Amino acid sequence: MSDINNWRKFSNKKTPAIVPLGKKFYEYVKPGTNVLDIGCAFGRVSFELYKKGYNVVGIDFNENEIKYAKRDAKKISVLGSKIKFVVGNANDLPFPDNSFDAAVMVAFMVTIVKPEERIQVLKEAYRVLKDKGTLYLSAFGQNWDNEKYKKRYEGHFPITKEMGTFIVTDTHDLGGKELYRCHHYTEDELRTLIQNEFNILSWEYTTFKTPSGNTSNGFMIVAQK
Amino acid sequence: MSDINNWRKFSNKKTPAIVPLGKKFYEYVKPGTNVLDIGCAFGRVSFELYKKGYNVVGIDFNENEIKYAKRDAKKISVLGSKIKFVVGNANDLPFPDNSFDAAVMVAFMVTIVKPEERIQVLKEAYRVLKDKGTLYLSAFGQNWDNEKYKKRYEGHFPITKEMGTFIVTDTHDLGGKELYRCHHYTEDELRTLIQNEFNILSWEYTTFKTPSGNTSNGFMIVAQK
Repeated sequence: MSDINNWRKFSNKKTPAIVPLGKKFYEYVKPGTNVLDIGCAFGRVSFELYKKGYNVVGIDFNENEIKYAKRDAKKISVLGSKIKFVVGNANDLPFPDNSFDAAVMVAFMVTIVKPEERIQVLKEAYRVLKDKGTLYLSAFGQNWDNEKYKKRYEGHFPITKEMGTFIVTDTHDLGGKELYRCHHYTEDELRTLIQNEFNILSWEYTTFKTPSGNTSNGFMIVAQK
Repeated sequence: MSDINNWRKFSNKKTPAIVPLGKKFYEYVKPGTNVLDIGCAFGRVSFELYKKGYNVVGIDFNENEIKYAKRDAKKISVLGSKIKFVVGNANDLPFPDNSFDAAVMVAFMVTIVKPEERIQVLKEAYRVLKDKGTLYLSAFGQNWDNEKYKKRYEGHFPITKEMGTFIVTDTHDLGGKELYRCHHYTEDELRTLIQNEFNILSWEYTTFKTPSGNTSNGFMIVAQK
């Protein structure tokens, strides 16, 4: 069964998907504030924010990724800015209530294949944000006009039991060893999930590239506590 | 050379010294607030606070201790209270500025044998506390009236290069394998250290027991950001 233990195994270089942080983030969140990067992996987005003058805490449950991130954090220093990394779980954040001005989840929700955990992850982000704090979230949308994805969604549904959740294997078909599962969201699904906790301020439609050369529909959302 | 790597090795049961949290803490810090337990080990003090209705984050660089603490946290649940544990270093806390209402360091400073690191640890506690936040700190005092300690301080000084810092070995003399180093504070030393950052509100003198059956002078301090 796929769960976070599969994600735990990924090393630095194998982290799937490269999704940039949307420009909207910078319109809503000003440098000098405290930003939590949820599911930061080896810190690509964390370091980008740090270099722009934000105080960043990156969190990921993958200990290897955090090890890399900490190593890199020692190498660079931005005057007046802080960057920290910590191992931890997005559904049980090790921070007090009302700690951060903003939180980002860049292509993180794609990894959460249990619906109840998605709710919990958003509740936790809400809890650690200050009043009126900003959530920036980008997620993969479902791609029904792409035959390859359509086949995956429909073919894997009998196993994953959720439409949009599919299995990535080492042989790129269901006969191989399962590496991890992914979930692509419908717009309604994601809206409902976020609106349970937050007020949506901005919703953008985009296209993300995946490491295998595919493209996918994507959503970039800014929301407020 | 002794450093945090030696402390890292200690498992749950071997953590030296049992020092209770002083009652003064409860006079100054009210339940329902967010408390950071710095150097929490397996969480003895963290759980005590949690059971009394505080929201607690415990931090320690010893991964084994945190593993035990997290395991125990899953077993108990106090209505409306939160307890979280995280691996991290007291001289580089993975929290934003102004996050906690209070921080405790119970018999933690005894483990910090580098003077510059003591300063950094207090600076970090200061940083993560909210304005007017409370620091509770207990520390071992030097024991010059105790022949055993006097011998240690004087005998180990040529090696440790700091009076009050001594070496604990597996054979209980300097011929054995070094397990860890400890530092016992003079009152002046500790006062200066704390006053660099904080306003001292309360200073109590007490006696602590050590696991080996010794007793030691102790200080219990409440200070304010």
